Amino acid sequence: MKKTEPRTLPGFMELLPQEQILFNQIREIIKNNYEKFGFLPLDTPIIEDSNVLLAKAGGETEKQIYRFSKGDNDLSLRFDLTVPLAKYVAKNYANLAFPFKRYQIGKVYRGERAQKGRYREFYQCDIDIIGDGELSIINDAELPNIIYNTFKELDFGKFTICINNRKILSGLFESLDLSEKVSDILRIIDKIEKIGKENVKKELENLNVENEKIDKIIEFIQIDGSTDEKFEALEKLNIQTELFKNGLNELKEVVKYMRLFGIPEIYFKIDLSIARGLDYYTGTVYETFLDKYKSLGSICSGGRYENLAEYYTDKPLPGVGISIGLTRLFYQLNEINIIKASKKSIADVLIIPMIDNFEYISKISNTLKKQGKNVQIYYEAKKIKVKFKYADKLQIPYVVVVGEDEEKNNTYTLKNMQTGEQTEVKLENN
Amino acid sequence: MKKTEPRTLPGFMELLPQEQILFNQIREIIKNNYEKFGFLPLDTPIIEDSNVLLAKAGGETEKQIYRFSKGDNDLSLRFDLTVPLAKYVAKNYANLAFPFKRYQIGKVYRGERAQKGRYREFYQCDIDIIGDGELSIINDAELPNIIYNTFKELDFGKFTICINNRKILSGLFESLDLSEKVSDILRIIDKIEKIGKENVKKELENLNVENEKIDKIIEFIQIDGSTDEKFEALEKLNIQTELFKNGLNELKEVVKYMRLFGIPEIYFKIDLSIARGLDYYTGTVYETFLDKYKSLGSICSGGRYENLAEYYTDKPLPGVGISIGLTRLFYQLNEINIIKASKKSIADVLIIPMIDNFEYISKISNTLKKQGKNVQIYYEAKKIKVKFKYADKLQIPYVVVVGEDEEKNNTYTLKNMQTGEQTEVKLENN
Repeated sequence: MKKTEPRTLPGFMELLPQEQILFNQIREIIKNNYEKFGFLPLDTPIIEDSNVLLAKAGGETEKQIYRFSKGDNDLSLRFDLTVPLAKYVAKNYANLAFPFKRYQIGKVYRGERAQKGRYREFYQCDIDIIGDGELSIINDAELPNIIYNTFKELDFGKFTICINNRKILSGLFESLDLSEKVSDILRIIDKIEKIGKENVKKELENLNVENEKIDKIIEFIQIDGSTDEKFEALEKLNIQTELFKNGLNELKEVVKYMRLFGIPEIYFKIDLSIARGLDYYTGTVYETFLDKYKSLGSICSGGRYENLAEYYTDKPLPGVGISIGLTRLFYQLNEINIIKASKKSIADVLIIPMIDNFEYISKISNTLKKQGKNVQIYYEAKKIKVKFKYADKLQIPYVVVVGEDEEKNNTYTLKNMQTGEQTEVKLENN
Repeated sequence: MKKTEPRTLPGFMELLPQEQILFNQIREIIKNNYEKFGFLPLDTPIIEDSNVLLAKAGGETEKQIYRFSKGDNDLSLRFDLTVPLAKYVAKNYANLAFPFKRYQIGKVYRGERAQKGRYREFYQCDIDIIGDGELSIINDAELPNIIYNTFKELDFGKFTICINNRKILSGLFESLDLSEKVSDILRIIDKIEKIGKENVKKELENLNVENEKIDKIIEFIQIDGSTDEKFEALEKLNIQTELFKNGLNELKEVVKYMRLFGIPEIYFKIDLSIARGLDYYTGTVYETFLDKYKSLGSICSGGRYENLAEYYTDKPLPGVGISIGLTRLFYQLNEINIIKASKKSIADVLIIPMIDNFEYISKISNTLKKQGKNVQIYYEAKKIKVKFKYADKLQIPYVVVVGEDEEKNNTYTLKNMQTGEQTEVKLENN
């Protein structure tokens, strides 16, 4: 028979079992933390009607979309979890309790140019809190609290949650009479970490911003010091536009509640340069960086938006959300080898039977399972060496050997595969 | 702004949060049982190269496939989890430890005609054990053991695992000199439960099978009695083809080990009429039925196959596997209302703050979380009635109210939402 080469498409992550176990542990920790705060699970389809999915999208995103027809249907694969959420909330508005807190962990699709570490199919792990008409600013402080708890548990090393409020920036530009250029300017200063101060200046000059205004902008986004010193410096700017004052007040509120929630001061900072590329966010914005690996970019981002579902409904639905791009993050963390496995194998014990009495083998297996262990039994007729090698390859921490002696004594021999230590365990005592 | 109707495609399941919680509980029980037996997780891409995915498929299946192009690529969405497994094992052969035991729980896609209870996107929950060249028959008994443990825990009521061995059937036909018509005959007798004995006879007549042979076939598949009585009746047929004798021996071995594993006799039976439609299976086959709801069809099926990946590799890779079609099953069980929820909400407690001291609120929240509870805090400025209604709608079992008295006394008031019972709990005592 002619063989087809069993290949996997480039840009699609497919892990070996050892890595998949790691990946799943991370996903599980994220899920558990989201549930810890009471977020409800959602699982929307991967395929949507193109008219629905692309009600808002256009330009760059549209090119990346997996779009096709089947029968009479114009279909697209979801490219994020936010648009499906908007559809869902608009569709099920009457059946939901607000504030609606949901998490969704699922695959999304973008036909990006294939390159190392970039994926066309990747997991997003999203939480959003959606209000019906209004939503307390305290929610903007809850999200950093979830980020804090999640990444503490994930244990990738020290991280910093950077927060800002887009109204502060917009208010500043309003006061400089640059409101018409706000989104262009935001896009430029968002790149300051990447391209440096001088290049930001140049790009602003190209936008025909006067030099004194450029200096003021640069001075502003380089305000430094502790969180409270930054607040002081912002007050001192004495900018009187409503937008600026609202933004500053909101940011102060968010920080106040973050402190009340007990997020240690060293785990967050105000970063006035964060604007987030999207035009979507209107208030608080977040980015999160691993202190030792800032070059990885933000590992968890999001923010406050005015209106989740305006393309589907007249109902004003303000919200705040964050997202972790898990597939790319896993790839990066695995490359620099900083993922700590709580377990390296699914099975906790491999039972190697040397006897035919499977009733006895089964009794041992059930006893261990009742203790909460995952138990695999090796059934194949192979040499004992091969069986131990199997346990080694799968990194199973314990092997149970059951021979005639053990059967007679109603025991089993438990071998710690790391230390080599062997213990004979009485069966009834378990 | 013109609004787009926020609709979800027909044939795509999208649940309300309350139902999603139920769905996830079932999926979690299945996953935990699979891991309990040491199966490794796998998460292959949903999109595959069409040449790879359709190396084997053809005819009926091909019509249902979501196939499209993106750039130069001819892509398809996976329609099951077996073909991706075959690709994966062939591709990663050198890096896997055999027997390779893997589970995969994921969405698959089939463009079926839309009708109630039929889904175009649905979850399959698969386990397979793949041997390198050979695979002990004991594995064929382990799978029913996993089915038994899983459905016991799922608690949908009494079920029966029906098993058979295709070699027995094929051996019978061989002895009747009907080998050339085996797959047609199998397909016909597989329908006996649906269309009845007389129609099976008629269809066999249409195949030009002689009447005495038809009688023998019908007699055979209607062998009745206990498992051991069926074995006796099969022996008495005195069929001497190797195939028949092998099949009978294998089936006896499987039953022997199922008993040794402790599967109670009432939870399984030999059903000689099961052939499974696919040409794929070569030995043991399984179907599982809820005793009270046989009309739902088999809720967990599978079997032994000779060669998993012959389209990709020369390596003989025998295997045995089962699959649960979770999406359809969930729909059916939900319709007849027999799913028991272990938890109806994600949050175990809703904290309703009546004071501004969020440091105190946060302390309570953290205390409860340390006890393993999922805790949501209600932040919005609403009337207390609205807040309680919120807890009701989300079916959160406990509400914690914190007012000035509680703050002064270092306590909180815990209200059981079902009984209405209120207790004041000291904070330090937790």
